[in-house]
Amino acid sequence: MTKRGLFITFEGCDGAGKTTVLDRVHHELEEKGYPVLKTREPGGIDIAEKIRTLILDPEHKAMERRTEALLYAAARRQHLTEKVIPALEEGTIVLCDRFIDSSLAYQGAARGIGVEEVLTINEFAVEEHMPDATIYLDIDPVEGLNRIHENKKREFNRLDQEHLDFHHSVYQAYEKLAQRFPERIHKVDAALPMEEVQHHAVNQILQVLSS
Amino acid sequence: MTKRGLFITFEGCDGAGKTTVLDRVHHELEEKGYPVLKTREPGGIDIAEKIRTLILDPEHKAMERRTEALLYAAARRQHLTEKVIPALEEGTIVLCDRFIDSSLAYQGAARGIGVEEVLTINEFAVEEHMPDATIYLDIDPVEGLNRIHENKKREFNRLDQEHLDFHHSVYQAYEKLAQRFPERIHKVDAALPMEEVQHHAVNQILQVLSS
Repeated sequence: MTKRGLFITFEGCDGAGKTTVLDRVHHELEEKGYPVLKTREPGGIDIAEKIRTLILDPEHKAMERRTEALLYAAARRQHLTEKVIPALEEGTIVLCDRFIDSSLAYQGAARGIGVEEVLTINEFAVEEHMPDATIYLDIDPVEGLNRIHENKKREFNRLDQEHLDFHHSVYQAYEKLAQRFPERIHKVDAALPMEEVQHHAVNQILQVLSS
Repeated sequence: MTKRGLFITFEGCDGAGKTTVLDRVHHELEEKGYPVLKTREPGGIDIAEKIRTLILDPEHKAMERRTEALLYAAARRQHLTEKVIPALEEGTIVLCDRFIDSSLAYQGAARGIGVEEVLTINEFAVEEHMPDATIYLDIDPVEGLNRIHENKKREFNRLDQEHLDFHHSVYQAYEKLAQRFPERIHKVDAALPMEEVQHHAVNQILQVLSS
């Protein structure tokens, strides 16, 4: 393994199983003896946490969507420079739950700001520190929402139905991103049994590691 | 006067006299019967104020400069959409103390992020709402700092000297911006007596108003 680590991000629609897969991949890589760090924004970074608190404050109904996108980019920058880059410099494999593609799919596409526009401010935030590889868990958005509801033991309701258009936009954006960045984004069928999803993800990471 | 107002920004190095000139221009335009709004970021806008508090928190020594630039752009966006645009839509002349050019000169040039880079995220924040005109108060940075010290009744010290390079970078950046955007940026010699500076600024605004 080289001195510089590996930056791996996990992406996908809600209910794709990102967090579970990430946990399992983290465990498996650790067992294989690799130095691994599991994180997600804001990742316990003081400034990034405070920015996130500001974004999520329910009092802020007036927050404009571009203000929100800039704040997400700011939190990303701080988490990246304070936590991810130092770990990479120590040779660690960093597994990050959601990163730039989530902003492109959610803010850019589904919220309608525009993918190119949101990419611009995120390129400013990320600079040359793009992920070495992205594990994209591909799941039909209806299936993803169904999984979430099974967990919550409740039925689809009217509000969910209204939100379905939103989740379809997110899904279509992810599909386009996977086509646009085929070198970086590795698509894994999230409908497969969890063991197989894990297996594919770990294999992808080991392949990037040895390349 | 057209239904859509006029968006005027005031720029310049520290000590150029922006705030005084802006106050006088505001007063004169009001006396002439124009609807005028005087503002500066974060301008009492709740979300923008909270972002500014975050930026200025002395605990945040670890704040990365690109994080800071993104936060300034976020506060700008919110102040613009919540306060400036609604006033313009009512036909008001909005006078704003510092705007996009300050970020380009201070963050972009003097802090070394790069003017083009900082322009990119600010274009995302501002979109088509660029100022109709910018009054740039041109003052030599040493003279500007001297004025500040006269006000504070103290001498130049070693720390000021160290900061002089920073202020020179800001000045050079403003000069380049004035050359780059001659249609928008109107340079006024801030070394002139205050009455003359005010006169030039008001004339510029009335000229833009009638064009």
